[in-house]
Amino acid sequence: MHTPSLLISNVSIPVSPGNRLAKSQWLLVKNTKIDSFGSMEMMPALPAGQHIDGTGKLLLPGLINAHNHCAMTLFRGMADDLKLSHWLHDHIFPAEAKHVNQEMVYWCTKLAAAEMILSGTTTVADGYFHEEQAAKALLKSGMRAVPAQAIIDFPAPGVPDPAKNIAAAEQFLQQWQNSDERITPALFAHSPYTCSPQTLQRAKQLAQKYQSRFFIHAAESRDEAQILMDPQGKSPVQHLATLGLLDEATVLIHCVWLDDEDRERIAKSNAGVIICPQSHLKLASGIAEVTEMLGKGIAIGLGTDGCASNNSLDMFQEMDFLAKSQKLRTLDATALPAKTAFTAATESNALILGLPNLGKIAPGYKADLILLDMNKAHLQPCYSNDFCTYNASGSDVHTVIINGEVVMQNRKILSLDVDECMTEVRKLARTIGA
Amino acid sequence: MHTPSLLISNVSIPVSPGNRLAKSQWLLVKNTKIDSFGSMEMMPALPAGQHIDGTGKLLLPGLINAHNHCAMTLFRGMADDLKLSHWLHDHIFPAEAKHVNQEMVYWCTKLAAAEMILSGTTTVADGYFHEEQAAKALLKSGMRAVPAQAIIDFPAPGVPDPAKNIAAAEQFLQQWQNSDERITPALFAHSPYTCSPQTLQRAKQLAQKYQSRFFIHAAESRDEAQILMDPQGKSPVQHLATLGLLDEATVLIHCVWLDDEDRERIAKSNAGVIICPQSHLKLASGIAEVTEMLGKGIAIGLGTDGCASNNSLDMFQEMDFLAKSQKLRTLDATALPAKTAFTAATESNALILGLPNLGKIAPGYKADLILLDMNKAHLQPCYSNDFCTYNASGSDVHTVIINGEVVMQNRKILSLDVDECMTEVRKLARTIGA
Repeated sequence: MHTPSLLISNVSIPVSPGNRLAKSQWLLVKNTKIDSFGSMEMMPALPAGQHIDGTGKLLLPGLINAHNHCAMTLFRGMADDLKLSHWLHDHIFPAEAKHVNQEMVYWCTKLAAAEMILSGTTTVADGYFHEEQAAKALLKSGMRAVPAQAIIDFPAPGVPDPAKNIAAAEQFLQQWQNSDERITPALFAHSPYTCSPQTLQRAKQLAQKYQSRFFIHAAESRDEAQILMDPQGKSPVQHLATLGLLDEATVLIHCVWLDDEDRERIAKSNAGVIICPQSHLKLASGIAEVTEMLGKGIAIGLGTDGCASNNSLDMFQEMDFLAKSQKLRTLDATALPAKTAFTAATESNALILGLPNLGKIAPGYKADLILLDMNKAHLQPCYSNDFCTYNASGSDVHTVIINGEVVMQNRKILSLDVDECMTEVRKLARTIGA
Repeated sequence: MHTPSLLISNVSIPVSPGNRLAKSQWLLVKNTKIDSFGSMEMMPALPAGQHIDGTGKLLLPGLINAHNHCAMTLFRGMADDLKLSHWLHDHIFPAEAKHVNQEMVYWCTKLAAAEMILSGTTTVADGYFHEEQAAKALLKSGMRAVPAQAIIDFPAPGVPDPAKNIAAAEQFLQQWQNSDERITPALFAHSPYTCSPQTLQRAKQLAQKYQSRFFIHAAESRDEAQILMDPQGKSPVQHLATLGLLDEATVLIHCVWLDDEDRERIAKSNAGVIICPQSHLKLASGIAEVTEMLGKGIAIGLGTDGCASNNSLDMFQEMDFLAKSQKLRTLDATALPAKTAFTAATESNALILGLPNLGKIAPGYKADLILLDMNKAHLQPCYSNDFCTYNASGSDVHTVIINGEVVMQNRKILSLDVDECMTEVRKLARTIGA
């Protein structure tokens, strides 16, 4: 698949300290990893292998989307501007009951993969039903992925009997562990209000057995404490802590409504937190107190959420919303600078997902890289302290390299057929009314 | 310049009632106006003139950016993540004093025009110094524009003696009135904290004499009431009302910090209000109470602000931020739906800017139109109640028509040379340190 070596020349790279842009750099990839980089004045002899001219381009680590329900591309724009509970119970859950099947998950995830690659995302953490189809679609697309089988105490697509949800999850883990170095299977317990304490504990035990990540939505809306299964006046995070579910392999999604004690619990446990700012705004969930969490040393990552609640999978926009929404919340323009948003979408996400040597341009790190075409009106000028978090968008991504392999070049995806994905998803959407 | 007739066939159009997408439509432009449109089943005989195949495309009215300081493209990314006062007084004002001249305004405005056309904006309201250069650049770019000469009680680029600021503004109005039907000159008094009451009143009288719009920044930050020139414990809006400056030809920019009485004053006066959500967030100014203003019947428009405080001129992103930030503020996901954001960026902006028959697809309206290429992964599927406010971005714009003239086709701007603009602005930026 990948060539043994790949040289990118004449490119701008953000370098330490301070991630300032260094111009006229070369970078050498060997097999699946970054080997070395430096100034063009001291470029190594051209090795055999592929060569990419990076003139006019900015080289960044591939973006990581740490929370997505990829297959929900089918429901994009189907039901906007609705209250979360109304949206979920009257639109999304019924549509899922009716339309989610193996074929749907495969094609709609593949369309999401196309959208993500086209916007510079090289790794995704996904959580859905029929997750083996999602894993298959993501693997074929060339992406790195953490696909997680969803666990919920209701009849679900592929798992009509909720008593079998843990068994189905184990089957998924067995099937996908050691399948490919780009695929790291995991579990996704839907939430503390749709899973019983027993289900949550069994799911976590299963995750521990397979040394996999345990994802869970938590503290998304203000009312969630009232609808916990086994309500004891506890906050969602306290509920999870009491059940013994918080540790460094647990990933809490959302965390919009926390109190100081919740933040203490999370910090002490080393659990990661994934923020989905656009989803939090669009569904009026609120705004996570990210700067306070960072102050406590909590690892903060970033995801788009499913695109029905966003409605885009472009991580450049997500970084923009993360930084700006925290400035708004604190009325402090220095709160959460662009670089912190960038770190959340790259290095921090990699750590939280348990993927070592990912999310940074450094020797020995995975060669998951993107090249932005800077020769565009909205990216001019470009000062050395700026790497365009507030003005770049996914459509500026020109080339995508994942695990040393060129997956997109000049905006053409080499690993999948975008037209085929669109055609298949349009067919499915027509049954809903598109 | 424009062909006498232009037919677009096979295109989707949002139609009344409810702006639902109608597929397979044709639309006929005659000279500078929309003549008629309808279903393909009843298409008129192909008239002589230009023909655009709209297959796979969505036709929308061109977007209107009702607040910009176009030439500030030069300062994009130069000083991010700083407090408004620090940003303005320690970075922007000194950079302007040093770098703003006729050549800078011409080229940096032209680069902004390129960015705006490429992202589907067909009309811009601009306010800056050396505004005759901005007007010239915008006219050459093919855009419709309301360029407004800035008035400030400090030495300013082109007006070193502030005693001459009104005279300079009058010269600008004289020069540009009746110059071209696409250019409507106006005045921009910087703010109630940088202009004396006397200057504000003289500027408004001048605007009245020339029947032009009177723009002013007002109530942007929480502290503004304390720094008004002539502080009497008044709010900025009360200050302006007391000076007799509020009427339907006055356009208030920002209005983040209003009280109920301010809203009453604005509503009674029929002054328009322009919101710049991304700038309000990035500079941590706060969040305007837009739904309350709409409830009072205040006309609400939308602008990007100068791109140094954004850092993008993409009105699709601005619509997205407007809708989502109001949902967040009210914790109500039904607050400010996508369609209201779209109306703000089109019809409402046209009304507020005093430009008749603009911002809507209707017979007799100006033929300012954009075609979006819907054949993209992130725009799939497309339900009939959705016109992609939350997922489209400027880069999806394929064709731009302004005043009946095709200004961009297949993302190639026909009216200006983007590479030339980028080269000239990069040259200027190097003197700052890019």
